[in-house]
This record gives sequence, structure tokens and C-alpha cells, in this order.
Amino acid sequence: MKNYLSVTDLSDPKAFVAQALRLKSQPNKKIAAAAGRCLGMVFFNPSLRTRLSSIRAAQLLGLDVFDQTVASGWPLEFSPNAVMNQDKSEHIEEAAAVLSQYCDILAIRAFPSLNARDADYSEPIMSSFLEHGSVPVLNLESATRHPLQGLADMMTIAEHQKATEPKVVLSWAPHPKALPHSVSNSFVSWCRALGHNLTITNPPGYDLSPEIVGDIPIEHDQEKALADADFVYTKNWSAYEDYGAILDVETDWQITPDKMARTNQGCFMHCLPVRRNVIVSSEVLRSDGSLVIEQANNRTFAAYAVLRQLIENGEWRMENGEWRMVNGEW
Amino acid sequence: MKNYLSVTDLSDPKAFVAQALRLKSQPNKKIAAAAGRCLGMVFFNPSLRTRLSSIRAAQLLGLDVFDQTVASGWPLEFSPNAVMNQDKSEHIEEAAAVLSQYCDILAIRAFPSLNARDADYSEPIMSSFLEHGSVPVLNLESATRHPLQGLADMMTIAEHQKATEPKVVLSWAPHPKALPHSVSNSFVSWCRALGHNLTITNPPGYDLSPEIVGDIPIEHDQEKALADADFVYTKNWSAYEDYGAILDVETDWQITPDKMARTNQGCFMHCLPVRRNVIVSSEVLRSDGSLVIEQANNRTFAAYAVLRQLIENGEWRMENGEWRMVNGEW
Amino acid sequence: MKNYLSVTDLSDPKAFVAQALRLKSQPNKKIAAAAGRCLGMVFFNPSLRTRLSSIRAAQLLGLDVFDQTVASGWPLEFSPNAVMNQDKSEHIEEAAAVLSQYCDILAIRAFPSLNARDADYSEPIMSSFLEHGSVPVLNLESATRHPLQGLADMMTIAEHQKATEPKVVLSWAPHPKALPHSVSNSFVSWCRALGHNLTITNPPGYDLSPEIVGDIPIEHDQEKALADADFVYTKNWSAYEDYGAILDVETDWQITPDKMARTNQGCFMHCLPVRRNVIVSSEVLRSDGSLVIEQANNRTFAAYAVLRQLIENGEWRMENGEWRMVNGEW
Repeated sequence: MKNYLSVTDLSDPKAFVAQALRLKSQPNKKIAAAAGRCLGMVFFNPSLRTRLSSIRAAQLLGLDVFDQTVASGWPLEFSPNAVMNQDKSEHIEEAAAVLSQYCDILAIRAFPSLNARDADYSEPIMSSFLEHGSVPVLNLESATRHPLQGLADMMTIAEHQKATEPKVVLSWAPHPKALPHSVSNSFVSWCRALGHNLTITNPPGYDLSPEIVGDIPIEHDQEKALADADFVYTKNWSAYEDYGAILDVETDWQITPDKMARTNQGCFMHCLPVRRNVIVSSEVLRSDGSLVIEQANNRTFAAYAVLRQLIENGEWRMENGEWRMVNGEW
Repeated sequence: MKNYLSVTDLSDPKAFVAQALRLKSQPNKKIAAAAGRCLGMVFFNPSLRTRLSSIRAAQLLGLDVFDQTVASGWPLEFSPNAVMNQDKSEHIEEAAAVLSQYCDILAIRAFPSLNARDADYSEPIMSSFLEHGSVPVLNLESATRHPLQGLADMMTIAEHQKATEPKVVLSWAPHPKALPHSVSNSFVSWCRALGHNLTITNPPGYDLSPEIVGDIPIEHDQEKALADADFVYTKNWSAYEDYGAILDVETDWQITPDKMARTNQGCFMHCLPVRRNVIVSSEVLRSDGSLVIEQANNRTFAAYAVLRQLIENGEWRMENGEWRMVNGEW
Repeated sequence: MKNYLSVTDLSDPKAFVAQALRLKSQPNKKIAAAAGRCLGMVFFNPSLRTRLSSIRAAQLLGLDVFDQTVASGWPLEFSPNAVMNQDKSEHIEEAAAVLSQYCDILAIRAFPSLNARDADYSEPIMSSFLEHGSVPVLNLESATRHPLQGLADMMTIAEHQKATEPKVVLSWAPHPKALPHSVSNSFVSWCRALGHNLTITNPPGYDLSPEIVGDIPIEHDQEKALADADFVYTKNWSAYEDYGAILDVETDWQITPDKMARTNQGCFMHCLPVRRNVIVSSEVLRSDGSLVIEQANNRTFAAYAVLRQLIENGEWRMENGEWRMVNGEW
């Protein structure tokens, strides 16, 4: 694995989840290859959970870390031949080349505009760092993806699934602000990569990108979708079709004890932060079946597994009952 | 010691001061139990001295560290069953549970409102992290306490006291802004715990909380109070009775060379930052008897001793002339 | 070397550049003397390149690091006997003394006002930390100097020079905002210290400080200056004479392919960030002769060499073909 921008960067996502859980349970987490190497983190948008879990993962591995939040202070120019006599003081070409000289892995957070769909889905910032940088790039939530969250979610499902093919439901939820698609997109992509039995349920008008959804069924009737679910993953997202809009829909999409009663004693999942009694009732959130705190905990070990793989720059495969690194080289 | 929120968390405060000074003088400060563990710091309010001295203490001990300032960016909901459809995006229950998964000790700074006394004195943020978190909590200055400052102050007195029972005076000082009670409260509580001969002097209307003051005499005549003092600790605080108010008093409470001349060649103390020629004259601040720079230095070693104890999770006792850890377990 | 505020702090700048390049190529960069020591960084102004390269240098060396940005939150008083009853909450005397207790090297960034020349050139913040602090001070760009940039620039020239005495040209460039003199001053000072064949070219009215320039020729005709140049270093600065002003000059000072064609296949240099097609054309910036990315890379190793010397507190000299530390003591 050269970079981690989405699940498609992994040659064997299923093996990777198993490997991440194995590494989680391993007591000593430092590796010699990390010594003297550095994870550089750049936040174009603020971060709490992602920042802290990734810092912690790097520390456990033995990497040095630096991070820089540039929310307001780094007006970058992206147009290759711009005349930069206005407010943009630095060009992404130099920025990416320079930053990647100061670290061994460059981790980037950059949210979407939510007003220009094609531009957002072209992932301008991630692709610029890929093109002009010289070290592996790690996605800390981009315009359309949140692959560390996706991995942590899959680890949590793997730890709690009883059936071999659990029924997983991704259920849209109401929210007062327009939110990106990144968490939902990565959840769907990861479920598809692992072959999970996934159903998406959302109000009409909120269907996610057809390319993300693929052949996963979208059920506009939430009650039907929830029937016999083993995992209910709730998340708000703004419209994809009417890009970035909050549509005028009835707000009874909140997950309540009544709705959970229709599931197969299903577990409740959310990436946090969650607006209580808007997205989900307090009661469900605090119930035994709520996995939200464990999901957040798995963020550390998802980041740990990915950082370790980026450093080792190979793939772990299970062969004849033993884990083996293949194609590894630094 | 499970947490350090105030001096009352220590079973033997006097022994702890002695132990902290012993650790300060010890050249090699790393301990094996710190390796791979992490101090997480969350600042709801900005910090300079506390942040840097605590980071330094953790580094000396061999702890990893992360810190996050959330002054403006983390609107937390505290009401258990709120409908979170307004400006609050995360509930303290999840926030505390999640953050404590990313570190081994959680250190929190959270100032008071200064307009709701009962709420401030109930310490809502500290008690929430205690209740919903899963690791030891360290108070980096809360609504009503600053126990690391209190410990550093006691270490400084111990290093400079000539008499067995020095006379200590806490003297209110004028200030243009309304300040919290935390430093003063912790100073008084620590002095009481060590049995110091303390007098508090402040203008009428500025008496601190009766529960904090206990049987310590309050003398409204500053000149009388300062007579024969060995240590003069100066600090502004806003009113407790008329909570958070700045009262209309004469401003001749500044500590001047004339006033210091009434003491027993007393030392001058302040927690810093200090407003020169408002709280204290430049001359006193720069005099040989001024301990303010040493107090600030002791902040590092106060934090060091507390972090070490929280990691070792036991108590150091002097028994038969030897220091011994009792009740220790991780 | 006790402090690094400008090239004049080095007893043998030429040997230091050679030593810095030797250390850059050395694989294992940690030294025992760094263990348990800490680089403290204080930013009165924001920083990206300097902050990250210095953090990285400290990590490579094995130093602990902390940094604090105080851009808006630390109103310091500099007047010795001020009555601090207004907006200034801390005096530089205590601030410097306290901060230097929390680290072993104190690195400071503090930009000029650009409206009071004598005050700026007296370097009030740097000199206060020198006077009131107790540890070595490292200049991360002050009002009038940027000596880590100067060192990185000299390292880059040394790596690319073909002739023994290359012709170096410092060429003023247009910019929409008034910028400090620090980079230009340090470039000139370093070139003079190394005996480089330097020419400065700028429009009339933009001559740098006579004390900085010394006997270096100033050529107001850019075309003449660029003839046969081996290195073209471009940089904007505001006026020194009409201090801080942006003068009304023709803006054809941009470095273009045509102008580079007049040089001796010269290399292009800039400290970054650079405004493309204002300071320099995209084409020159991306050309093979552009050293800007390498200059930025050398920032790490410039900081590394300086930090190492400050820790070892001696001078490296080449004697009888071997590097030897002289006058070293901690």
C-alpha cells in the first residue's frame, strides 16, 4: 500500500481488518522501522477524534508526529498558472513538495465545499498532495471519503457480529446543518469491499452517489429496512442530487427504542459526535447494544494498522495459517 | 491516588510535598511505567505556564503527550436528555468516554463562568470527566481549584522557610478584571492541609468561601495582617458573596516596599502572570525576596510528582527512614 | 555558540556550512546529549515552514519539543516600570525568565512592526529573552533577521556551486503587501560572512540598511546585475529608508525566462512561500535550475546543525583533516 485514500488502496480489505484487530490485541506496539520517522498531519479543517486517535496511534507505533492546523492561515492557490497578486500567498505545488520533505507520511484533512459537486468529488487537495508530494498520503477525511472511520467501523462490526453474514443497515438521520458524504461513502465502500449484506435507507432525494452505492439496495421505507438488522449505522448527510442541500422531509428518521425493537437485537452505530434526541434517542445511545464508544476506540487501532502498513509499504497476507508480509519495501 | 482534583485527593499532603522535592532533585526522571503511556490534555481555556510545565513534566517522566485547545471549537452539551438541535454538537457523556480511551491520564482546564456560583462550585466539567471517563483525571485549573499551583506554592515555601512554623499571609490585590477563586482556594486548602500558620487579608466583601476558609482568620486590616509575615502571597480574586463582582474598594492593597518592611524579612509570592505596579510594585517583584520565578519553576516538578503518582497509582510514605510505595497498583 | 540570533554568532561561518552539510548526510542523527533536553518554541507570529522544519530537526536530534503560538493571546509589557492596569497582562521580564525554565533552548519568532524602524532594528523581543532568560536563544525569524533561512540558503548554494567564486545576485521583487527585511538581511549578511561575490539589485528607494549592505554593490539596473549570475535569489522587501513603505515603482522586476537567459545558466532561489507570476514566472519556478524546494528541505538540516551546536555549546573546526569540537561545554 503506497497511500491510504480509500478502501480501494488495499489489495485485500478483509485480511486487513483481521490484521488490524490482531495488531490491536498485541501488547507491544512499537516497531523498529518507525524509529526516526515522522507522521506529519495537516488540518485544513478542525479535528478532535481523528487528530487525537491518529497522534496516539503514531506514538504507540514509535513514530514522531507533528501537526499543523491551517484552517484560516494558509490560503493556497490551486490553479497552475495563476497570477498570485490577490489573497493567495502559496501555491499547492510548492506546499505539497515542501511539506512532504519534513515527514515520512503526510496525513491530510480537507472538507468539501458542499456547493460544487464535481470539484468536491475530484478531491482537489488530496490529489494535489499525491501529485506534488513525495511521501505516502493518508486521508484524515477528505471531501468525499473518511477511510479511517470506515476501517474502524468494520473492525467494530467484526468484533460484534454473531452471524457469518450479518444484516447491516445504513440509515439516514436528520441534522440541522448540511454535512458531507464522506463517512457514509466510506461506510458503503467498505461494506461492499467486505461483501456485507448492506441496505441503505434514506428519504427520497437523499440517495448517495450512484458510483458509491453500486448494486446496494436503497430502501426509502425506514421501517422495512430496519427489520431483522444486526447493525444499524446512523448518519446524516446532505443531498447528493441537489448537491449539499437540506431537503424538506419529515423528521421521524431518528433512531428510537421502538425502531430498534424491529431489528434482530441489533447493535447501534454512529461515528460521533452525535446530536442526542435528533439523530438518535438518549436511550438507544446509552443502551447495551450501542457501539459508539467502541467505534471511537477503534479509530486508534485503525490508524495504527494503516500507519504500520504505510511504513512497511507491503501487504500482510494470511498464508498457510501464518501472517506474511508480501511486496514489502521501504 | 486515583485522580488529582484538589489536595484532598492526597492521603498525606505533607509527605507528598517532601516527595515532590526529592523527585525534583533526582537527576534521571524517566520511569519504566511511563513508557508507552500518554498524558492527554484538553484546554477549554487558554494556558501558557500550566500547559508548558505539564508537557515538560510528562516528557521528563517519559510519557507521550497530546493536547487540544477547544476554547471556541467544541460546544458541549451537559444536560443528560437535551434535544440537541441547536448549537451544541457533542454530549459530554460521549466526549469524556471517548477522550479517555485515547490516553492514560486525562488533564483538563476549565474556568468558571463567574456568574453562577452554585454551578461553578459544583465543577460541572471536572465531575463529568470523572463520571464518564475511564482514566485518572488531572485538574489543570478548574472553576474553583488550581491544585498544581497549590502544590508548587507549598514546595516553594518548604524550600525557603526558616522557622518551623512560618507565618503565611494571603493578601488580596486589586486587578482591572474579575478573576476566579481557584488559585486562592487551592492556596488556602493546601496551607490548611499542611497546618501552616495562615492569615488571609482582604477588603470587606471579598471573603472567600466559608467552606474553603474554615477556621483560618480573615483580617480586613492589611497592615496588621502583614506584621511579622514570613511569606506574603498576593493574589486578586473577585467577590464570592456578590459572586464574580469587582467591588468598589480603595486600591491601596498593592504590595510595596513599605508594606514588605513590616514583615519578618518576608518572601514575596505570586502565581504569575502579575500586573506590575497594580498587584505589586516593580521593586518588590525584582527584590531578592521575590520567589515568583521559583514558584513557576516548581510547576514543572509539581506536575511531575503528580503524574508519577497517578501512573504508579499508589502513595509514597516515609517509613523507618525510607520512602515506600503503598497501595500501588496500575 | 551561546545563542543563534544572526550569522555573527558563529566564529567560523564557512566551517559551519560545511559541518551542516556533513551532518545532513549522516544517517543516524540522534545524539546522547539531546536526551532529556527540550526545545521550547514560542511564536508571536504564525509559522509553517519554520515551525515544522525546526520540530523535525529537534526530533531527529532526539530533543523533546513544545511549541506555543501566542499571536493573539499574550499581551506582553516591555516597559520596565509600567503601571499595568490596561490590556497588558504579563511583563517580558517574568515571561522570559519563566519560559526559559521550561526548556533547554528557547526558540522565538517575532516579526517587526514595520512602522518604527529604530524600535524594530533594536530587536526588542529577542533582546529581552536574551537578557531575562537563562537558556540559549534561537531566532526563528525576528524583526530584522532570519538566520536559519540564511544558513539553509548558503547550504543550498554550496551544494550547487560550480565555480569557486560564483556570482550571486539578490534581486528585489514586487509584492502586494509590505514585507519585512529579515530574509534579505540574513541572506546579505551570510553572503558577506562567506565572502560570496554578491550584487544586490533593487529599484531606487529600496536600498537595504547601509549597515547590512556594507561594501556590497547595489545595482539599480536589474538587467546589468543579472548578467552572468550563477545564483539569482529573489525576494520582496518593503522600503528601509521610507520605512515599511511600498513605493510606486514599475513592476517589471519579476524574474522571467528572458531574464534568466542573461545569467550563466543560473539557479533560481526563493525562501518560499512565493507568489507565482508576481515574484517569478511559473516557468522559472518549475525549471530544472529552480532550487526553492531544496532550500526548504535544507531548513531542516540548518535547524539540526544549529540545535546540535547549541546543545554541545562549542564550535566544530576542521583541524588536520578531522572535525574537532573546541571550547565545548554544557
